[in-house]
Amino acid sequence: MDNFADRLHQAVSARGAPVCAGIDPRADWIPDEFYDRAFSQHGRSPAGVRAAVREFCLQVLEVIAPFVPVIKPQAAFFEALGPGGWDDFAAVCARGRELGLIVIADVKRGDIGSTAEAYAASLFGSSRVKDIALSSCRADAVTVNPYLGADGVEPFVLRAREHGAGVFVLARTSNPGSAQFQELALAKGGTLVDEVAARIHEWGSGGVGRYGFSDVGAVVGATHADAAARMRAIMPNAWFLVPGWGAQGGAAETVRACFKGGTGAIVNSSRGVMHAYAAGPLKDHGPARWREAVEKAARQFHAEIKAIAGG
Amino acid sequence: MDNFADRLHQAVSARGAPVCAGIDPRADWIPDEFYDRAFSQHGRSPAGVRAAVREFCLQVLEVIAPFVPVIKPQAAFFEALGPGGWDDFAAVCARGRELGLIVIADVKRGDIGSTAEAYAASLFGSSRVKDIALSSCRADAVTVNPYLGADGVEPFVLRAREHGAGVFVLARTSNPGSAQFQELALAKGGTLVDEVAARIHEWGSGGVGRYGFSDVGAVVGATHADAAARMRAIMPNAWFLVPGWGAQGGAAETVRACFKGGTGAIVNSSRGVMHAYAAGPLKDHGPARWREAVEKAARQFHAEIKAIAGG
Repeated sequence: MDNFADRLHQAVSARGAPVCAGIDPRADWIPDEFYDRAFSQHGRSPAGVRAAVREFCLQVLEVIAPFVPVIKPQAAFFEALGPGGWDDFAAVCARGRELGLIVIADVKRGDIGSTAEAYAASLFGSSRVKDIALSSCRADAVTVNPYLGADGVEPFVLRAREHGAGVFVLARTSNPGSAQFQELALAKGGTLVDEVAARIHEWGSGGVGRYGFSDVGAVVGATHADAAARMRAIMPNAWFLVPGWGAQGGAAETVRACFKGGTGAIVNSSRGVMHAYAAGPLKDHGPARWREAVEKAARQFHAEIKAIAGG
Repeated sequence: MDNFADRLHQAVSARGAPVCAGIDPRADWIPDEFYDRAFSQHGRSPAGVRAAVREFCLQVLEVIAPFVPVIKPQAAFFEALGPGGWDDFAAVCARGRELGLIVIADVKRGDIGSTAEAYAASLFGSSRVKDIALSSCRADAVTVNPYLGADGVEPFVLRAREHGAGVFVLARTSNPGSAQFQELALAKGGTLVDEVAARIHEWGSGGVGRYGFSDVGAVVGATHADAAARMRAIMPNAWFLVPGWGAQGGAAETVRACFKGGTGAIVNSSRGVMHAYAAGPLKDHGPARWREAVEKAARQFHAEIKAIAGG
């Protein structure tokens, strides 16, 4: 099984830009044609809503697959569809893999011991009960919250590594108030996130691949100019998953500081790509031209980030 | 809509002890009779495994409902069943409510902005898309991770409060390594968890009910003797959800320090109750007498914690 960091490197090289498309389906931003078709088949029902959301996501994947090496489906938006939403999440992950994309399940899970093992079972590979295989999302990587300490991260890292998958641990998140706890000054010097970053570096030490990066990455927002270079210095071998570009106002200079020799970071855009017609700068395309808007947005995102990474 | 803290107080009074039964179904610890019945209906298939797990959980609820005011289904063990597992989680939550139990969805979610809103929609009340109601777990409370700061907690608090529900924020977790980040000494004095606890106190200030407790509680493990009294002093109005009793070795003295005047804490036991025949001190009962073992374990747990809380 290839090392996750190596697989990520190869996927980015193949598509030519270190970009990730967030799959965060907001039900209100999906063109009516999807609801019309789904309701004619399933009635005006929760199943109809789910079918519309699923179909939109799957079609978005087809449009963006030539431009992005990585997708990041966000579990919350699927869970919000009610029971059954997790099936749609798994279906989106599966189609992403079929299209040759690296799939990061953005679940931000964090728990310990056998509970962490259970979460990991739902995300990587398959598990067996009474000799019956239970399927998982078979994600290539997941996001994990470090608050519980190593007990809450290592079970994910070990299980991921068995499957050639990876883990991105939340370090400095992109939200405006992320400093509240993450940048608390410590008595021994540095801040909480510096300490978290040092542990991420350690957790990844057993999974460094041939390009010098490890299978334990870090989430580092594009929105905090002060943090990116500091994080890069503490975690020289970590892939950075960089949210906050676009809608959240991330700056090119901050994004640039996340890279190391033009590699080692993937920048995410969610609504700016998949909901380009509804929420992005391509609003004038309207719902009838949603596909054209998504493709334009993906191309433009690809070009922007390629220029930043290379520059 | 009644305040969550008041509803919790009343539920504990009605059952006579501040105890919570964790619903953490480990597929390997479920009596074979459940698999036999489920497989005869669904075949030896993932659906059969899920049916066995669901039925066992539902029957456990019937057995324990006279003794426990609160249940805490753990999402991880349901997600581990593969797509569809979330439906079973929702079914267990629904049956708990029907039995008059307070249902704490142990999901440890943590995300921001519209993503946190989406998680909250999957947990509380119902949401509407195209005028179609999408159901949620309709939990009475959820567990939330504070690492992202107020941005990641307040959306859950606000949504919960609208529905008379509550939030338990992770403070000092019960795992052996929880001190790694949670007890890092801060430059301004105290440790990270002291700071988190101070914010939990603030987040709850808008939701204090008639008994002096708020709808924003804290997870404080039974396993750290040094932390309980300190946490109680910083969060005088917070309900404590106390894991770590039983299998994890929590001490009576530590549990006692979580209470305030004999109230304000609920102590959780997971495998010790629901898996009493398979993993607890009542192993000698064997699978055929699983029901008797669960009832005995629930009665004993009730008596133990009642004595500690009152003493």
